[in-house]
Amino acid sequence: MRSLNPRQIEAFRAVVLTGGVGMAANLINVTQPAVSRMIRDLQRQLGLTLFERRGTGLVPTSEALSLYAEVERAFVGLDRIAQMATELRTRRAGFLRIAALPALANGFLPRFAGSYLVERPKLDLVLSGLVSHAVVTAVAQGQSDLGFAEGSIEHAAVRLERMPPAPYMAVLPQDHPLARKKRLRPADFEGESFISLGYSSLSRFRIDRVFAEHGVRRVMRIETPLSEIACSLAGSGAGVTLCDPFTATEYATRGIVVRPFEPRIHFEFAALYAAQGTPPPVAREFIDSFRAHITAFLRSLPRR
Amino acid sequence: MRSLNPRQIEAFRAVVLTGGVGMAANLINVTQPAVSRMIRDLQRQLGLTLFERRGTGLVPTSEALSLYAEVERAFVGLDRIAQMATELRTRRAGFLRIAALPALANGFLPRFAGSYLVERPKLDLVLSGLVSHAVVTAVAQGQSDLGFAEGSIEHAAVRLERMPPAPYMAVLPQDHPLARKKRLRPADFEGESFISLGYSSLSRFRIDRVFAEHGVRRVMRIETPLSEIACSLAGSGAGVTLCDPFTATEYATRGIVVRPFEPRIHFEFAALYAAQGTPPPVAREFIDSFRAHITAFLRSLPRR
Repeated sequence: MRSLNPRQIEAFRAVVLTGGVGMAANLINVTQPAVSRMIRDLQRQLGLTLFERRGTGLVPTSEALSLYAEVERAFVGLDRIAQMATELRTRRAGFLRIAALPALANGFLPRFAGSYLVERPKLDLVLSGLVSHAVVTAVAQGQSDLGFAEGSIEHAAVRLERMPPAPYMAVLPQDHPLARKKRLRPADFEGESFISLGYSSLSRFRIDRVFAEHGVRRVMRIETPLSEIACSLAGSGAGVTLCDPFTATEYATRGIVVRPFEPRIHFEFAALYAAQGTPPPVAREFIDSFRAHITAFLRSLPRR
Repeated sequence: MRSLNPRQIEAFRAVVLTGGVGMAANLINVTQPAVSRMIRDLQRQLGLTLFERRGTGLVPTSEALSLYAEVERAFVGLDRIAQMATELRTRRAGFLRIAALPALANGFLPRFAGSYLVERPKLDLVLSGLVSHAVVTAVAQGQSDLGFAEGSIEHAAVRLERMPPAPYMAVLPQDHPLARKKRLRPADFEGESFISLGYSSLSRFRIDRVFAEHGVRRVMRIETPLSEIACSLAGSGAGVTLCDPFTATEYATRGIVVRPFEPRIHFEFAALYAAQGTPPPVAREFIDSFRAHITAFLRSLPRR
């Protein structure tokens, strides 16, 4: 196979993004016939049908969508090289790519990272929110310098430092009768509409087990993998939930109240970096500062 | 190959989740030797090495992690069947599985969905937040009844209804000098530390093009694929951004101010459902109510 031409890839990407040759041509500043030709050549070279015509638009095939995912990965790589070059030219202090699980990414971590950047005007940042599995993969494959993921999943190419365990908090709609209690126990949840977090996470297992051990039956109407969705749903009165303290506090201004829950169930997570070599100094410094920030935050939580 | 035993799969899942035979045994209520035997049998049957010993724990191999992703998908399927059975037994009014892109999932959609559920006490809900590509796949593969994704990516197995286009808003730290302006234009962003959304989304292309056309140079220090991260970063003073109005409004209580931006750039998204058959009535009703809610919300935004 002849090696692929970067312009063809750019055209392919533009057609997937816009759904049509005209808009794609406009996006990448070439003529429509040029886009059509590049797509045709690419299809022939790859031996794949990449688009199907529907009405005035082009719909990508399943093959095209799979290919697109790879192309995106490669483009991120190319962008990174360009960015590194800029960095070297402008002698910036450094560049940090962090991937974090949703419980941290929906506010707590970006808020900390933002203040961290304000104090370090020469540091650049890419911050992604990914599920824990994807965080591990991003670090293992070198797409992120630093990751934060649930603590129990390990990978041979990744080193792991446990972060302080964080107690799950009870999250209630602000006008809920249980909001009068200072502290909640499993029995308080009997018959309550419960928002379950995660289809099959370790936390879900452990939370369900605590309620089972106490013989408490919740009404399991609502399920979501994301703590931010659970808190938003609770905020609109749809039910109660148990949630990590980072998200719970982040959403506390938005219609929910947050209470300690006993027995304690801990959300456990870790900082990850590539197992080969040592973490870049900028990552090392970030982990240590973030750990201190978490410790202070956990001390500030209501305890009983 | 002998067909796989569900108990083996459960053991595999438990070991991945806990990182050790002891904790896995505890989690699924069997003895440690039973877990070890099931894992050993599974490895032999599959012809794969699934775990490597490290210290006292077991670290899953890359093969195990790939397999795990498939197992999770299958388990979601099994859970769904169990849930449907419960639903039939208890004659609930219905069950709706929605997957939505982050801009809607970080608050706006769950808040609406929560109120919607409060009014429909017999409706159950699974609500996932996924990137647009994954939303399309979830709907195409029947894992979600209803999806909300960026409008331009189509799929042959999915039907699409465009939702009202939503103008990107300027998002600033609340104490930023530009916060005094009622409305922002590209020139206002000259020399500002800018938080870029998305490595390579259509919106990113279009936003960058507007600034390029106006000859405005921003300081591109920070990049994130998630609008909620962009707003949190802005809230801590790290920079300014352009963001969909759903997320911007959701985060407006948390350290940012939101202003109209001109020229208008629109965030375009659509409701998706399986192309075969008609959408379930409960999904049809949800789309229509949600569209009305969006229209009212967009009318409430500051315009100039």
